[in-house]
Amino acid sequence: MARFKHGREGSLAEDRYFEDYVSGTVFEFGEIRVSEGEIIEFARRFDPQDIHIDPEAAVRGPFGGLIASGWHTAAMMMRLIVDNFLPKRASLGSPGIDELRWLRPVRPGDVLRVRISVIEATRSRSKPDRGLVRSLVQVLNQDEKVVMSMKAMNIIACRKDPP
Amino acid sequence: MARFKHGREGSLAEDRYFEDYVSGTVFEFGEIRVSEGEIIEFARRFDPQDIHIDPEAAVRGPFGGLIASGWHTAAMMMRLIVDNFLPKRASLGSPGIDELRWLRPVRPGDVLRVRISVIEATRSRSKPDRGLVRSLVQVLNQDEKVVMSMKAMNIIACRKDPP
Repeated sequence: MARFKHGREGSLAEDRYFEDYVSGTVFEFGEIRVSEGEIIEFARRFDPQDIHIDPEAAVRGPFGGLIASGWHTAAMMMRLIVDNFLPKRASLGSPGIDELRWLRPVRPGDVLRVRISVIEATRSRSKPDRGLVRSLVQVLNQDEKVVMSMKAMNIIACRKDPP
Repeated sequence: MARFKHGREGSLAEDRYFEDYVSGTVFEFGEIRVSEGEIIEFARRFDPQDIHIDPEAAVRGPFGGLIASGWHTAAMMMRLIVDNFLPKRASLGSPGIDELRWLRPVRPGDVLRVRISVIEATRSRSKPDRGLVRSLVQVLNQDEKVVMSMKAMNIIACRKDPP
């Protein structure tokens, strides 16, 4: 589903720890191709609105054709993030997301990739074996347009004990 | 997947328009039961981390057992929202979400429902045939605990022309 690429910094995602998420670092990876069948399959189950499940009705809708559920786009993004960005051992979950925006429709045939810019990485004072990584996540299509963006928080375990 | 219930105000979701989303109104609906099989199926495709796909490894993980992907919880919430909250004809999409928080783990056997409190409903000045509805969305489990919350924006068509 996702072709594996390294981040620009070159480390393998699964071996990363908190120390590898440095403010200013940009990770870029993907891609994932979106099919009409997958758009309809996801939406029939989780978001059965005509613009996501009925190609003919969608043509008359506000986007002039079938588009992916925003939650489907988020799920595809997450697959790319798990395969390419998050560490396998050191990932301790996420408290949440801010400013999630669906900026442009995602249509059948689109090819998506993800760009993550680390905004801030702060070691926890109360639990110094881990830190909080804040990042700007952008999902881009084959025309270099941002289709979705969000600010993410991830808790990541540290490789080394605090100094 | 979702049993249909009306909002407290009693109108059928599919017949609603912007005028039916009044500030202060609370809609409550569901439920949806979460199974281990569905947690694993969703996560194998979109969020293949051990805490979501491997029950044995998850026992040793930070949550002491298998938990649903946060994006799976969001997708299940969306299904309940489409079936019970959004109008069928008048829904014109969503620009995005703010302050999405995963507050408690969702585990196999949990039963989720949704509570939506309309915060603000503002008719568009530039496009007076529609309005923006801002709401607080909470996903609750069978113990009345909020497992996820977010602030949502929805663009909804008006029933009547502006006065």
